[in-house]
Amino acid sequence: MTKLILVRHGESQANKDNVFTGWNDVPLTSLGRKQAQTAGKIIAALDFKPTCVHTSVLSRAIVTANIIAEMGNFLWTPMQKTWRLNERHYGALRGMNKDASKNIYGEAQIKAWRRGFDAVPPLTEPNRSRRYQGIDPHLLPGAESLHQTMDRLLPYFYDQVCPKLMNGEDQLIVAHGSTIRALIKYLERISDEGIVSVEVPNAEPIVYEFDQKLKIIAKRVL
Amino acid sequence: MTKLILVRHGESQANKDNVFTGWNDVPLTSLGRKQAQTAGKIIAALDFKPTCVHTSVLSRAIVTANIIAEMGNFLWTPMQKTWRLNERHYGALRGMNKDASKNIYGEAQIKAWRRGFDAVPPLTEPNRSRRYQGIDPHLLPGAESLHQTMDRLLPYFYDQVCPKLMNGEDQLIVAHGSTIRALIKYLERISDEGIVSVEVPNAEPIVYEFDQKLKIIAKRVL
Repeated sequence: MTKLILVRHGESQANKDNVFTGWNDVPLTSLGRKQAQTAGKIIAALDFKPTCVHTSVLSRAIVTANIIAEMGNFLWTPMQKTWRLNERHYGALRGMNKDASKNIYGEAQIKAWRRGFDAVPPLTEPNRSRRYQGIDPHLLPGAESLHQTMDRLLPYFYDQVCPKLMNGEDQLIVAHGSTIRALIKYLERISDEGIVSVEVPNAEPIVYEFDQKLKIIAKRVL
Repeated sequence: MTKLILVRHGESQANKDNVFTGWNDVPLTSLGRKQAQTAGKIIAALDFKPTCVHTSVLSRAIVTANIIAEMGNFLWTPMQKTWRLNERHYGALRGMNKDASKNIYGEAQIKAWRRGFDAVPPLTEPNRSRRYQGIDPHLLPGAESLHQTMDRLLPYFYDQVCPKLMNGEDQLIVAHGSTIRALIKYLERISDEGIVSVEVPNAEPIVYEFDQKLKIIAKRVL
């Protein structure tokens, strides 16, 4: 049985400050690092031998992945970092306190942007960090719905993760709240309405076991 | 001008214990992590924008590379991990205290094995760790001279590092005492006798600047 483990990064400074983040590059808190160590110990206790670790180009996910790989004794495993696993782009909400945003836009609108499948937050200028230099500019979002996030994530999953899983190779994905939700939605065929109530806590390993046709045999949250 | 920075890993537990290590996978000490942070701060102060980080499949080098990438704000940069950048394989000396080894083999022999270019330590069984599974077994050493180490390292340097440098892309290599010495020998055309006296301290960035034909324009040790 082949394992795919999904992990959301540990607590970030923005999680702690209750701030919208998206593509802003914020560090883990010291609690976030400890959560990642705990996740790594849990994963180390499984019979888990990934041939590749997949993460985003955002530091909070990469540091979480590095800590898990160190605790799991697979630091030497190749790690691929892709913007396609980045958190959903929160557009003009980035850097805004979530409570303060409710006073500006109203609670219902904020809930729709946060949990709805098709709601797109207010647009902002695309990110010009050097890490996005090689990407066709028309792909770079100014804000994204969860739907759009899923659409740009799945090509990576299809091309870089599925073939390895179908070849019997365990895989680890360390990513973000919205990208893990999008993967769960895809893997479990959850409806657009059903995904609204799915929450993904920081650094809790979600373990899927597949057969060779990518049918889910078991799912555990550790 | 294109930069290549070479860094030996921070202090490892084996450095601290004065033990031969080679391909044994030992962790950094807390001093080693601090040294890596200092190296990262020094590198962050340069105009250094690597397009790739190259390291071995040994944890002490990978963790040093991860810490430097975090301090330098280039965690998102691709990192390639290869056995070709591993420390020299110390054969049967692995795990042996360096002082104790002198009592067994004599000081002159130990000095020859440690610093000579062609001396091969006593052979041992090749490593069977999962990280070497995809490598043609006849390539895996039971012990290596510095010369043999250089011979297995250079194909990686030629194929994965030189083309990027010649394309104007800065590169970072985080490796080990012997692999950094081999690279210095190659880059500076140092004689087989001359390399005997070259020492590489832990976590001191060595910065080369090249023109587009890979001619060294400047070298600094920071």
